[in-house]
Amino acid sequence: MEEFKVLEIKQSVFADNDRQADEMRRELKKKKVFLLNLMSSPGSGKTTTLSRTIEALRDEMKIGVMEADIDSDVDAREIEKFGAKVIQLHTGGMCHLDAEMTRQGLEGLDTQDVDLAILENVGNLVCPAEFDTGAVKNAMILSVPEGDDKPLKYPLIFQVCDVVLINKIDVLPYFDFDMEECRKNILIRNPKAKIIPICAKTGEGIEEWADWLRGQVKEWKS
Amino acid sequence: MEEFKVLEIKQSVFADNDRQADEMRRELKKKKVFLLNLMSSPGSGKTTTLSRTIEALRDEMKIGVMEADIDSDVDAREIEKFGAKVIQLHTGGMCHLDAEMTRQGLEGLDTQDVDLAILENVGNLVCPAEFDTGAVKNAMILSVPEGDDKPLKYPLIFQVCDVVLINKIDVLPYFDFDMEECRKNILIRNPKAKIIPICAKTGEGIEEWADWLRGQVKEWKS
Repeated sequence: MEEFKVLEIKQSVFADNDRQADEMRRELKKKKVFLLNLMSSPGSGKTTTLSRTIEALRDEMKIGVMEADIDSDVDAREIEKFGAKVIQLHTGGMCHLDAEMTRQGLEGLDTQDVDLAILENVGNLVCPAEFDTGAVKNAMILSVPEGDDKPLKYPLIFQVCDVVLINKIDVLPYFDFDMEECRKNILIRNPKAKIIPICAKTGEGIEEWADWLRGQVKEWKS
Repeated sequence: MEEFKVLEIKQSVFADNDRQADEMRRELKKKKVFLLNLMSSPGSGKTTTLSRTIEALRDEMKIGVMEADIDSDVDAREIEKFGAKVIQLHTGGMCHLDAEMTRQGLEGLDTQDVDLAILENVGNLVCPAEFDTGAVKNAMILSVPEGDDKPLKYPLIFQVCDVVLINKIDVLPYFDFDMEECRKNILIRNPKAKIIPICAKTGEGIEEWADWLRGQVKEWKS
């Protein structure tokens, strides 16, 4: 039906990263450290969500955060205020983290006493999705202003995520965002995805998210 | 002052792309085709802004659009309705376009009768900024919900852009977004950047943007 031309541009080949990622998960299991990889677009509210998550869980478990950023440390400064152990990872322009880079981060963080390690990946819906970081679970945030069609346009990240947080639901009245359409679009990509609408700013939905995460950490450490 | 550690992770080395980009600009000058590279985060309103831009300029010049997307054609379908010549570029997972990929796109589009060619780059604030596409000018969209701190966190894209459109100003009352702070943050990265607040949905500010673009095309073709 399309009248415009579709041109397939060649893809580059990535080095094998999956084996390293699997190996890291085995080590994390042995050390009883749960690693969550948190991905999203820039400005979707990763840091605020992370702050809320730390508030909800810090009395029950020791949390360590790796803040990956091109070269600023805005987010690490913010997260530090919430009392989590934090390390800033400068990716030197790199748009994602792979398993080896994540390993460098975990070593820098020192996970000796950490129950839950969270990697705040680079704000990007494309590249981070292509690299298994070795995390036990992948989570992503899609915010209302970004639109309900994003699962159609950035399919891979929705496929690899175990949970999708739909953030900024407080501004639903001001955007053409159809929550049911969005759920449908996510489930087309990933029928097993858990979907949790939240508002990190007001705290709405954070309890459900914290419950899910608490359950995952418990299961991993058992 | 920071109490968290800062770890520098190694950067990969990119192939030399600048020479190809310069060569392409020389060819475009000869052919009198103005190429605009439009970048932004996913969901910032690139496609809607583009539709408004076409509406504002289509009676004065022939416009051709290259829609780069991982693998969907949602945007090309939308743009086609506005009467521009359009080609969908599937990047096969690639997170950016370089000069060679853009050349493939321009050939596919066929710029024989085109005055203004617009590349809608992959939605990503990181990778597209690192590759000169051969465009005459770079533009980016930052939308209000993304936050006024983005120039601090994604410095390169602000450095390479000649113009920054601040979109979705209709929702300013619902977000903690300080326009003056945002301007300041952009100008730290790029003192020469032209900054135009717009609302693609309502059309506010589009005339100023169309004026700027009209002037650029005229200058390039003269």
